[in-house]
Amino acid sequence: MLQPNVETFIACDASLEEASTVLFGAPYDSTTSYRPGTRFASKAIRGESFGLETYSPYQDKDLEDIKVFDSGDLELSFGRVDLALADIRKRAAEILALNKRPFMIGGEHLVTLPAVEAAFEKYPDLQVIQFDAHTDLRDDYLDAKLSHATVIRRIHDFLGDGKIHQFGIRSGERAEFQFAKAHTNLHKYSLAGLKETVAALKDTPIYLTIDLDVFDPAAFPGTGTPEAGGIFFMEFIESLKLLSQLNIVALDVNELSPALDQSGASTALACKVVRELLLAIN
Amino acid sequence: MLQPNVETFIACDASLEEASTVLFGAPYDSTTSYRPGTRFASKAIRGESFGLETYSPYQDKDLEDIKVFDSGDLELSFGRVDLALADIRKRAAEILALNKRPFMIGGEHLVTLPAVEAAFEKYPDLQVIQFDAHTDLRDDYLDAKLSHATVIRRIHDFLGDGKIHQFGIRSGERAEFQFAKAHTNLHKYSLAGLKETVAALKDTPIYLTIDLDVFDPAAFPGTGTPEAGGIFFMEFIESLKLLSQLNIVALDVNELSPALDQSGASTALACKVVRELLLAIN
Amino acid sequence: MLQPNVETFIACDASLEEASTVLFGAPYDSTTSYRPGTRFASKAIRGESFGLETYSPYQDKDLEDIKVFDSGDLELSFGRVDLALADIRKRAAEILALNKRPFMIGGEHLVTLPAVEAAFEKYPDLQVIQFDAHTDLRDDYLDAKLSHATVIRRIHDFLGDGKIHQFGIRSGERAEFQFAKAHTNLHKYSLAGLKETVAALKDTPIYLTIDLDVFDPAAFPGTGTPEAGGIFFMEFIESLKLLSQLNIVALDVNELSPALDQSGASTALACKVVRELLLAIN
Amino acid sequence: MLQPNVETFIACDASLEEASTVLFGAPYDSTTSYRPGTRFASKAIRGESFGLETYSPYQDKDLEDIKVFDSGDLELSFGRVDLALADIRKRAAEILALNKRPFMIGGEHLVTLPAVEAAFEKYPDLQVIQFDAHTDLRDDYLDAKLSHATVIRRIHDFLGDGKIHQFGIRSGERAEFQFAKAHTNLHKYSLAGLKETVAALKDTPIYLTIDLDVFDPAAFPGTGTPEAGGIFFMEFIESLKLLSQLNIVALDVNELSPALDQSGASTALACKVVRELLLAIN
Amino acid sequence: MLQPNVETFIACDASLEEASTVLFGAPYDSTTSYRPGTRFASKAIRGESFGLETYSPYQDKDLEDIKVFDSGDLELSFGRVDLALADIRKRAAEILALNKRPFMIGGEHLVTLPAVEAAFEKYPDLQVIQFDAHTDLRDDYLDAKLSHATVIRRIHDFLGDGKIHQFGIRSGERAEFQFAKAHTNLHKYSLAGLKETVAALKDTPIYLTIDLDVFDPAAFPGTGTPEAGGIFFMEFIESLKLLSQLNIVALDVNELSPALDQSGASTALACKVVRELLLAIN
Amino acid sequence: MLQPNVETFIACDASLEEASTVLFGAPYDSTTSYRPGTRFASKAIRGESFGLETYSPYQDKDLEDIKVFDSGDLELSFGRVDLALADIRKRAAEILALNKRPFMIGGEHLVTLPAVEAAFEKYPDLQVIQFDAHTDLRDDYLDAKLSHATVIRRIHDFLGDGKIHQFGIRSGERAEFQFAKAHTNLHKYSLAGLKETVAALKDTPIYLTIDLDVFDPAAFPGTGTPEAGGIFFMEFIESLKLLSQLNIVALDVNELSPALDQSGASTALACKVVRELLLAIN
Repeated sequence: MLQPNVETFIACDASLEEASTVLFGAPYDSTTSYRPGTRFASKAIRGESFGLETYSPYQDKDLEDIKVFDSGDLELSFGRVDLALADIRKRAAEILALNKRPFMIGGEHLVTLPAVEAAFEKYPDLQVIQFDAHTDLRDDYLDAKLSHATVIRRIHDFLGDGKIHQFGIRSGERAEFQFAKAHTNLHKYSLAGLKETVAALKDTPIYLTIDLDVFDPAAFPGTGTPEAGGIFFMEFIESLKLLSQLNIVALDVNELSPALDQSGASTALACKVVRELLLAIN
Repeated sequence: MLQPNVETFIACDASLEEASTVLFGAPYDSTTSYRPGTRFASKAIRGESFGLETYSPYQDKDLEDIKVFDSGDLELSFGRVDLALADIRKRAAEILALNKRPFMIGGEHLVTLPAVEAAFEKYPDLQVIQFDAHTDLRDDYLDAKLSHATVIRRIHDFLGDGKIHQFGIRSGERAEFQFAKAHTNLHKYSLAGLKETVAALKDTPIYLTIDLDVFDPAAFPGTGTPEAGGIFFMEFIESLKLLSQLNIVALDVNELSPALDQSGASTALACKVVRELLLAIN
Repeated sequence: MLQPNVETFIACDASLEEASTVLFGAPYDSTTSYRPGTRFASKAIRGESFGLETYSPYQDKDLEDIKVFDSGDLELSFGRVDLALADIRKRAAEILALNKRPFMIGGEHLVTLPAVEAAFEKYPDLQVIQFDAHTDLRDDYLDAKLSHATVIRRIHDFLGDGKIHQFGIRSGERAEFQFAKAHTNLHKYSLAGLKETVAALKDTPIYLTIDLDVFDPAAFPGTGTPEAGGIFFMEFIESLKLLSQLNIVALDVNELSPALDQSGASTALACKVVRELLLAIN
Repeated sequence: MLQPNVETFIACDASLEEASTVLFGAPYDSTTSYRPGTRFASKAIRGESFGLETYSPYQDKDLEDIKVFDSGDLELSFGRVDLALADIRKRAAEILALNKRPFMIGGEHLVTLPAVEAAFEKYPDLQVIQFDAHTDLRDDYLDAKLSHATVIRRIHDFLGDGKIHQFGIRSGERAEFQFAKAHTNLHKYSLAGLKETVAALKDTPIYLTIDLDVFDPAAFPGTGTPEAGGIFFMEFIESLKLLSQLNIVALDVNELSPALDQSGASTALACKVVRELLLAIN
Repeated sequence: MLQPNVETFIACDASLEEASTVLFGAPYDSTTSYRPGTRFASKAIRGESFGLETYSPYQDKDLEDIKVFDSGDLELSFGRVDLALADIRKRAAEILALNKRPFMIGGEHLVTLPAVEAAFEKYPDLQVIQFDAHTDLRDDYLDAKLSHATVIRRIHDFLGDGKIHQFGIRSGERAEFQFAKAHTNLHKYSLAGLKETVAALKDTPIYLTIDLDVFDPAAFPGTGTPEAGGIFFMEFIESLKLLSQLNIVALDVNELSPALDQSGASTALACKVVRELLLAIN
Repeated sequence: MLQPNVETFIACDASLEEASTVLFGAPYDSTTSYRPGTRFASKAIRGESFGLETYSPYQDKDLEDIKVFDSGDLELSFGRVDLALADIRKRAAEILALNKRPFMIGGEHLVTLPAVEAAFEKYPDLQVIQFDAHTDLRDDYLDAKLSHATVIRRIHDFLGDGKIHQFGIRSGERAEFQFAKAHTNLHKYSLAGLKETVAALKDTPIYLTIDLDVFDPAAFPGTGTPEAGGIFFMEFIESLKLLSQLNIVALDVNELSPALDQSGASTALACKVVRELLLAIN
């Protein structure tokens, strides 16, 4: 039978009604100050996901057994940051209003800001767990308040002290590390400390944001600002058991720039991160 | 509103009922003897088509004004040539049975065989116009009768003498050129002679097959066996006025191997060829 | 002797005082809607220029005989279009105020807008000659008024009818071509008509903007939206004799995206365009 | 003196008579369902091997001290799986009949099937040790019984239960892992358990098959389906002391796709794997 | 039967005795001042040649009908220019002493010097025809007398005035063009003038050297210093009828840098140039 | 204000007078026997360094707090090894004569020879610490005494026994390892043993040479002869505390070949190595 060509992340073909999680892409990288290209991530991840198995031997779970709806990519204005962020916020809010969990695929890290805003509106006691190479705590960047380099600082603006838990951090200005000391819970270089954080946050609504540059560039060269000295895949896998104990109400995976790694290995890793997260939270 | 993620060639979003032309992808390259990769062409062309305008200044026509349905890609078996070809034939026949025109995006050139078979079944007086660098007239290739290098010979098997019109040919074995002399209408190096061919075939049902390696590798490096000395884009544009006078009942565009041209220019050219053909035949 | 590391376009090492032309880079591509990367063009062109000879056999002139100052790249905010454009305008105005000719290397085509504004402020009878594949005449693009796709429309806003001369155009929406018919002098596909335009404009101050995608992607694949069917290098060379008769008061070359053509051939061609223009206008 | 151009893996220039091991290439990837390209592996490995030293500091042995004959690549039909597999089987049998050890370089993993068949014919008590990311235990794949994804299942068909020892496995369908539980000895993620396996198999004829995607994509991105979470080179090196205690009667290394890693690092790693295996078994 | 792995340019498998032409590779690029990599050309050309047909429709001749011996690549010292050139000269002389025609595949253009020396020793009335983008007439380059940029000047040192015929030239220093005016026969930009040159040289022993950068970078981006504005393939094909009238006693094709054009199209074009030259001179 | 375009490694903009360390590039790779390209390293490192933060969380130090002068790249003759080495030696000696520390960025490893010569002239009790995958202890290579493969042997010629400390070594000929046993202090595979070496050398003037191929190709594929099995970034970071206790009087970082890793991750790692070394020694 002749059908229109529906493209989803592998096995994420549930109807909206039955789905508990809703995927969407936020293909935006307009404030990226170095190598852009993350705008192509969500499309690449969908395409590459068909090279994956739906079954995870790590968690002994299968995407075939869960219900996820893939609502495709937003069409975002590259010329107007304000409009792009508003569109993302609207989409996240729409999903949350249906009592479903939004799972956004970036784009640059700035896309996290409106999604956290939408989640915070629904869950005033929201806290954020961030896997990242960078603090993203600048107050402004080249005179812009809204930037991939300021996104966590902007989130701190409304979330306040002690609500942001940063892991894997290994790059930033001295002032950012000083800010973190005073205002966030920053863990350098690895995911060490996650166990204690999860234990303390079990009943709290969590927004999980994974900047894929938390991975070592050996494992994940496909990102605009590769930072040597990151985590490897098995460290991420080990974190899943902890993450699955949390009440994650919204999440995102961002900063894959697929064209920078022509072997496809970075996109394939990103796909596995998405698969494992979907299985961990459902 | 949250919608599933439908992916089509740009502006080819008509319903099946209203459409006069139906696109489908045949992502198959299993007999490719040199550099494979054409299996990724249809996906790449859909994605890249959104970099196109829908309007053609060459023909002063717009995709917005015509009705095309994109039925997505077939899922073809790489391990079984027979099954793959049968699936393609079935899809082409299904479209023809609805009195619509199938427009297939390959894949390697072998995918043309079952599509011509389906068209020939409906139109016994079918003739074939082929733009190509290669004769594709071998009787067998490395002991295989079904191969990208034998496809036109297989079509000749049932179509017979004088029904195949070859243009742009510049590569083949000596024996293939000798076969062509006796059995097909072969025009070397360019599209010269197309005018006379079109004049003679105006009332005949035509299958048009465009092996994109007919283009010079300067304009189109993204193909497995680039053959220097081909046509450039404006020569193709000039042929459109002629092609639009024909009764093209089915057609295909094949042999783009997108990963071989990382600039994206080859995929972009393939997109324009598809756009211009859609506008010329509708 | 130990010296700091001054990097210029080859042989553009005159002092500011003696120079008649001042180069500067505008590494900005934040509104690029498809493949970004032109922000790296000016740096790449400087580096690659040392693979050039300073002598042009086409014009029998040598860069060693003329005086050009290279003032390096602006540091532009990716998060704020308004700030970026203001900084460009300021630089162009500063050069014009010294009675020197600004020669800007983009960046995406939007950078042309503030440079034309600065030139128009000094020369109220300014006209624009544009070599480009695209009309760039949209009124807005994805809700943004300031975009690479609207730049010539924005220039028309203040320059008015009949002052913009477009060559090589082969892509745009139907409405853009209709706008051009009413308001600009548009020449499709090639540089044909340049001779008459130059004859009519000999005493008029001219801003020359060259979007390098006017070249055929065969010759210049290193650009974000390659449009088949463009000009080749020798057509550009033939235009130099005409261009050298004009009173060009400011100019730019834009839309090279060096990483898209890893052979380096596109960057090398861009370097030659810069060299030949420098020789033609001095 | 003018000689014909003989190309071998470095230092594998013994005569057939004196050689104990015979290399051959099986450049076949026609059933590869995702990114093809392993057909170019044997040629690439020979060329790149001249960047290697012949001496291994790990084993303190030198290729100069052993006798290996490189019989070049088979010419295999891409259009006919049956013919291709028959040709491989014939070559392996021919080498075994000379009481020499065949060392095949794939190609996709399916090429292992006929080589194991040939070895099994000579050694009815043959067992298989497999280093791989994937179980390769599907019963069919897209309706094909012969496929890179079914190869170990086909080997199980005639070898029977308990004779296949799988290491490094981290990807497959749930049903494949269930099949493994019942019928093979599967070790997940790493080479842990190899010591015990080797101890138990010391007097048994062994076919060793190394799918290079057992390596982490960080170390080996040059393969069609990179699976994060694999082994690194030093783990492989540590296994050599164990492997050298076995009675390996035939072996292969497969699934390098050289064009996917343009840095050359994947091909270089494959070369070292071949060198170290040659030194370990001779 | 098990055979050692002999690699030749396609169909160049005659014995030394029966051959009239002897191929050899000179993989040397140590004086290349910009992007090196031509050392890999001869190996790449041999490998890629199997994507060619042996039959040329342009000349209606077939490599199967002529006798060529491929003696493989020289092993040249990268650290000692003097030794490398001596080894090349020895090889060329050895072939000439057998009354066969040496056909060298470079390498950078400097490899032409010793080959011309060897030919000049045998044929004191030798003249040189050069297809090239560059004059290569510098007297020294960065203090080195032996360089790719000085090679034709060094040849002029012993050949003298009026014996060097340059075609396609479009890059050089002003002084080089002035030198050419006085001492060589230089034809700019194209092969125009070749007819007259051939007519005048019919009975003269000719060394033909083709620097592949004579081609436009659109057709041939795979070279270290791409120079826009060159010839296209059909212009080369048209020259073959003229070249075949000459008494070419030795020849070379140089300056392919295969890694710079990852599409393979440049290497494929180089293969066709070699094939067509072999057919034209035999 | 219009300024000339000075390019330095990030934050290395001190004046020569105030600087304690002076950077310079030695873009030379003419004896590289396999894949060349390190000549582009210093330029690439400068450009990419602006993607770095100036602050190191590993050492809690900031480039803003130290004084480094970047004197740019030498212009070296590719055709004359002797001239190139003499120019490097002169530059290193010039910096040492000012009682500043030269920090050279290669280039192939041979550039280390003249820099060590210059340092040895000033510090007769100089010893060398080398991080490298290769012994570089050949006596000659393809008949050349001066080669990237002989550089440490040449240094041993004048430094004598026991003064060279090699770490991370995993590739070389058997004879090189035997030479090392007798004449150098060689540590295989990792940096193990560095602690003892540093303890013994605390008051000795040290030349530190880091061949970046000491890193595993997973972390650093961008080098001509990638050798699997090397160190990862965090092992390097851990060595910094030791290195900072030494009296390093001159140093270099070499063998980055930026074009071989198109993701940019190798160049980014090299930048971090330079930053961390600058912070460790100042």
